[in-house]
Amino acid sequence: MKLSIKPTPRLFKWAGALAVLATIAPAFGQDAAAIPKLSDLSDLRVGLDTVWVLVAAMLVFWMNAGFALVESGLCQSKNCVNVLAKNFIVFAVASLSFWAVGWGFMFGDGTPFIGTEGVLFVSGADNSPALGKAYAAMNNFSTEEYAGVYGSINWTPVPLWAKFFFQLVFAGTAATIVSGAVAERIKFGAFLIFSFLLVAFVYPITGHWIWGGGLLAAANFRDFAGSTVVHSVGGWAALAGVIVLGARIGKYKGGKVQPIPGHSMTSAALGVLILWLGWFGFNPGSTMAAMNGKAIAYILVNTNIAAATGALSALVTAWVILKKPDISMILNGCLAGLVAITAPCAFVSFTSGAIIGTIAGILVVLAVIFFDKLKLDDPVGALAVHLCNGIFGTLAVGLFYDNQIATDIAALATGLDRGAQTMAQLKGIIYVGAFVFPVSLLIWYLLKITLGIRVSPEEEIEGLDSGEHGNEAYPNFQVAHK
Amino acid sequence: MKLSIKPTPRLFKWAGALAVLATIAPAFGQDAAAIPKLSDLSDLRVGLDTVWVLVAAMLVFWMNAGFALVESGLCQSKNCVNVLAKNFIVFAVASLSFWAVGWGFMFGDGTPFIGTEGVLFVSGADNSPALGKAYAAMNNFSTEEYAGVYGSINWTPVPLWAKFFFQLVFAGTAATIVSGAVAERIKFGAFLIFSFLLVAFVYPITGHWIWGGGLLAAANFRDFAGSTVVHSVGGWAALAGVIVLGARIGKYKGGKVQPIPGHSMTSAALGVLILWLGWFGFNPGSTMAAMNGKAIAYILVNTNIAAATGALSALVTAWVILKKPDISMILNGCLAGLVAITAPCAFVSFTSGAIIGTIAGILVVLAVIFFDKLKLDDPVGALAVHLCNGIFGTLAVGLFYDNQIATDIAALATGLDRGAQTMAQLKGIIYVGAFVFPVSLLIWYLLKITLGIRVSPEEEIEGLDSGEHGNEAYPNFQVAHK
Amino acid sequence: MKLSIKPTPRLFKWAGALAVLATIAPAFGQDAAAIPKLSDLSDLRVGLDTVWVLVAAMLVFWMNAGFALVESGLCQSKNCVNVLAKNFIVFAVASLSFWAVGWGFMFGDGTPFIGTEGVLFVSGADNSPALGKAYAAMNNFSTEEYAGVYGSINWTPVPLWAKFFFQLVFAGTAATIVSGAVAERIKFGAFLIFSFLLVAFVYPITGHWIWGGGLLAAANFRDFAGSTVVHSVGGWAALAGVIVLGARIGKYKGGKVQPIPGHSMTSAALGVLILWLGWFGFNPGSTMAAMNGKAIAYILVNTNIAAATGALSALVTAWVILKKPDISMILNGCLAGLVAITAPCAFVSFTSGAIIGTIAGILVVLAVIFFDKLKLDDPVGALAVHLCNGIFGTLAVGLFYDNQIATDIAALATGLDRGAQTMAQLKGIIYVGAFVFPVSLLIWYLLKITLGIRVSPEEEIEGLDSGEHGNEAYPNFQVAHK
Repeated sequence: MKLSIKPTPRLFKWAGALAVLATIAPAFGQDAAAIPKLSDLSDLRVGLDTVWVLVAAMLVFWMNAGFALVESGLCQSKNCVNVLAKNFIVFAVASLSFWAVGWGFMFGDGTPFIGTEGVLFVSGADNSPALGKAYAAMNNFSTEEYAGVYGSINWTPVPLWAKFFFQLVFAGTAATIVSGAVAERIKFGAFLIFSFLLVAFVYPITGHWIWGGGLLAAANFRDFAGSTVVHSVGGWAALAGVIVLGARIGKYKGGKVQPIPGHSMTSAALGVLILWLGWFGFNPGSTMAAMNGKAIAYILVNTNIAAATGALSALVTAWVILKKPDISMILNGCLAGLVAITAPCAFVSFTSGAIIGTIAGILVVLAVIFFDKLKLDDPVGALAVHLCNGIFGTLAVGLFYDNQIATDIAALATGLDRGAQTMAQLKGIIYVGAFVFPVSLLIWYLLKITLGIRVSPEEEIEGLDSGEHGNEAYPNFQVAHK
Repeated sequence: MKLSIKPTPRLFKWAGALAVLATIAPAFGQDAAAIPKLSDLSDLRVGLDTVWVLVAAMLVFWMNAGFALVESGLCQSKNCVNVLAKNFIVFAVASLSFWAVGWGFMFGDGTPFIGTEGVLFVSGADNSPALGKAYAAMNNFSTEEYAGVYGSINWTPVPLWAKFFFQLVFAGTAATIVSGAVAERIKFGAFLIFSFLLVAFVYPITGHWIWGGGLLAAANFRDFAGSTVVHSVGGWAALAGVIVLGARIGKYKGGKVQPIPGHSMTSAALGVLILWLGWFGFNPGSTMAAMNGKAIAYILVNTNIAAATGALSALVTAWVILKKPDISMILNGCLAGLVAITAPCAFVSFTSGAIIGTIAGILVVLAVIFFDKLKLDDPVGALAVHLCNGIFGTLAVGLFYDNQIATDIAALATGLDRGAQTMAQLKGIIYVGAFVFPVSLLIWYLLKITLGIRVSPEEEIEGLDSGEHGNEAYPNFQVAHK
Repeated sequence: MKLSIKPTPRLFKWAGALAVLATIAPAFGQDAAAIPKLSDLSDLRVGLDTVWVLVAAMLVFWMNAGFALVESGLCQSKNCVNVLAKNFIVFAVASLSFWAVGWGFMFGDGTPFIGTEGVLFVSGADNSPALGKAYAAMNNFSTEEYAGVYGSINWTPVPLWAKFFFQLVFAGTAATIVSGAVAERIKFGAFLIFSFLLVAFVYPITGHWIWGGGLLAAANFRDFAGSTVVHSVGGWAALAGVIVLGARIGKYKGGKVQPIPGHSMTSAALGVLILWLGWFGFNPGSTMAAMNGKAIAYILVNTNIAAATGALSALVTAWVILKKPDISMILNGCLAGLVAITAPCAFVSFTSGAIIGTIAGILVVLAVIFFDKLKLDDPVGALAVHLCNGIFGTLAVGLFYDNQIATDIAALATGLDRGAQTMAQLKGIIYVGAFVFPVSLLIWYLLKITLGIRVSPEEEIEGLDSGEHGNEAYPNFQVAHK
């Protein structure tokens, strides 16, 4: 590991070192009216862009806490430790697998199908934050020519490891989506292995198609911040898991859906507020540069509008269908709006954002009911939120597409009309589903026939906290599982 | 919706697009020693200011989680879902109403009483981040002349939608303040309608007087970050609600105050820590620009000093009066200090900040006792925190006013002495109370005689979670309401 | 208190003020192609650095919430209010004591042992963000010559109060570490007094040795972000407290270790996620400047790698030794990795970071068992996390030291080989322990024989919430203490 940062005194914390330094540095006074060099400005820009990208990445990292709380809150208290442990450790696993191979498969130069260069431990040549000559000229910044093997993510003027961390937190999100859907009956070890494989191989491959310069990137498919890359990929993997695992004991007893309410609405509500906040890193942060302040602000406001309309339309839908404004529907409505706006946030008007959020909020309530009709048991509604609305949001890019906004905000206009853009989106949706779903099915199935993926019925009834971890989540409270 | 951002390649995520681009862009090398243009520096400054304003806005958004936890934690578990749902959905409601008309009434050009231009959906002309010529000259930055209808908020060099989002989260805060005071007996629907009206009309009108170039702005009234604009406005609206609603059943039974303890001190303490953090966006973020690093740091430290002294003085006061350091008093003391320093943080010394926090911490304990004497039933102490200390903080601007600091930190010096400044503050406090309180009374009263605002006694005793939402907050725990 | 910020119009919030201003400012148009002055660039850099340092400081402030939740979650519900109150108020206390004298003892110019100038209320001369001439020349920025008494922290181009707040949150962290170890039997008042003294005297003195230009700074000792300065100092103070206090009643009954499980794994897990996030401010923020984007990103990724490997290796270790993946071990493993990487994050490769995290995760599990063998009763594992891994991490600087990385990332290379660097580290570890541990013992002992530091056995059994605060944490729930 070698970085070519020139030594500067600004990190010295020791007065002792100062003395040494003073003798090294040419001691000349400077005139405040002197003229700066272009390279000074470039350094400042790289610093600003790096701060923005890392702060946005931290917000997305923080979504791990959101998912941990939403998922544990919507499960029973006897499985709370298990859900928390899964959500906690999954980011640790993702950190290693995305470092080991995931990043390289996703962003390494290679074929339209997969990255092949610089795969192992992000070890390929790269001189980021250097940009290509074209960028430098257009932005009027001084910069070296880019020389490396991660060319598809060379449009952002931040150091390689800032790019890596930002992309890592997205990869981690895809794995946490699976966690909720398979909760309350999956073996802890099996989930960890699946997560490792998802982040190491499955997620990066479809990611390469779209963000890594692969086959869908070349086909006018647009997914600004990951309705498909992150959310529906996680959703397809979760659907496969739900099918191979089967429903929880008692969930569809006697041909009827038996509600199994979550143990803490405080956890669930706090979790969704964390996710709402985190999405302000997820979508606006996907600019991966701070210089375009208008784009960041525009995307943030569009994201917020869809979250608000999603929550309100799910509220109304639940009030109409279920007769009362069920809190889990309000919360999932908000998430549905956020998932749906993730792809189109930089390509559509605020009015369209409001419509997309409204539709998402209705869709999520209907989808929860629909999946239960199919006896696909998803304790937290992850399929309704991430799969359905990941697909809907990706499609919405086409349905509400505005070339003018796509040009102004993201400089990513395709020039297509809404019909043609919708077809491009549809193609991408099908390609991704046709890869992720069967591959996930296969992995879950292989895990099932080897290690086993489901705990024993005794353990499931007793609770996974005791069976898998030897812990109780709340040992000082009288618990009453119904 | 049209934005005039020139297309730049920096958001391109597709290698495919790169090839196209390379042919468009003039391919010439650049010399790192070349001289940058002033416009390059301006772009960088706008980017930096935007990042700071949006990060600060996110911190204030995050206060929604703080209020949700403080208020639900200080209420009973049978009403927990209801409190969480109210606090969650209120920001969604505020997002729509502030977009629809609130922003325009507050910041639109118009009369000293209300904004009248560009009211509907922020649709007025605006070329932000362009500033006026005067600013540009003094800051030595290149910029276009401002041309638009939101002239009162033209002093900050950030894009319009960054201004909007920052102001939206402040508006949302005012509405969440009401939520706590009316908790445990208000109808969910009635609260949503009140919140919509508060953010659409009431909050923006007094906001226009102060931050929108209206009548109090012209009268030397100073409220740096909103002790009055946000907190006492929320407090007056809450007081009106408490009066129209009446006390909870059993609260003042037999002529004595019956304590109804909150159900989770974990929620309450976490909530206040979130609010303390959020206030570092609320006050320092109200610089709405990052270039003045000294101002940001100064305001942050003053904010923290008042929070610390508020918590400690409430601790001591409670220890003396109640014989034990009650945790809810410590928490409310911290909030009281924060509310009180919000107006004066940029105008007073750190020593004054410490005195203001200390007084606020004493005041909040006495006010909680005082409101209970008046049989004004406020489950979470919102009146003591936001109304009393909002007023006190606004007055403290005058009592501790320092023209030198006001010049150095906020460039907002009035030149008045403390006596005259205190009179200016008093005038503003009276004007705002004389508008917000009766108007809120009227709205609550109209809601009462039409839809009804209070749940039935049976539902109140049973809990609003079941009655309003059909949910239980903690279905796996044995609950014991006393 | 006087600050010499020149008045600028950018904070004006009033349209009225605009008119006045326009007449003051010279009204001339500006050409976007004009050439900026070096001073414009310097102002921008100070703004950017300040935003980064304060955002990082806020993340570290946020760790207060993390410690409050981890510590209360790992204690019993009958002591929950007390733990929350301690963790909440300790930052208020630290804010005052670090302001009063702590900062000055740590960063004031003086002797190699302690700062002696500008001690009281940060009142010494200082013209930050001005840097020394050497820095200015090397960074090609225009700046005044530094003139002040806080020379040891003059390498960062941010205003004095940004430096202060960043260092304050670190000081506060040291005090919160103590809180967990002494929980469930300490008197509230005694803890507050100890915390005040720790932050006022003990922490700043050893801090002065290392970060304040003192004796260890001159001896090639390296601790980038505080494995020793913060964590093992807190750990030694905690160890002294544990010894003077004695074990909780029943903990070592009948010669065997009786587990006393914590009351909420939700609190504990959320707390550690908060701490993980906060550490992205703690370590990368210790650059205290944003211009070196590569350093920030590198340190962040190294921090994350150690957190991930720490969590995973503790998971595996617990699975092997305890037969099940205990959640508190996973959580403490993550913290152990974070504590251990804190000193070396800027001096070692990512591979070394992974090894350091892995060792830390094993160490923490063994240390928890070891301290229980010694009957040192630490309810939350603070000694295993902060003391053991603070020492290990400091030593790891030497064991894994890489001069090339130390040069590139932090410009802090010593030029020593690993053996010599390890000896330098060992010396620092011994010096700090030999000061902090006996001094803390003395303070605890003096408190014991004067005020008393331990609650009565009756109160301990009944719970400190009722005895110390007159509160119940969860009055609506049926509680069952085993």
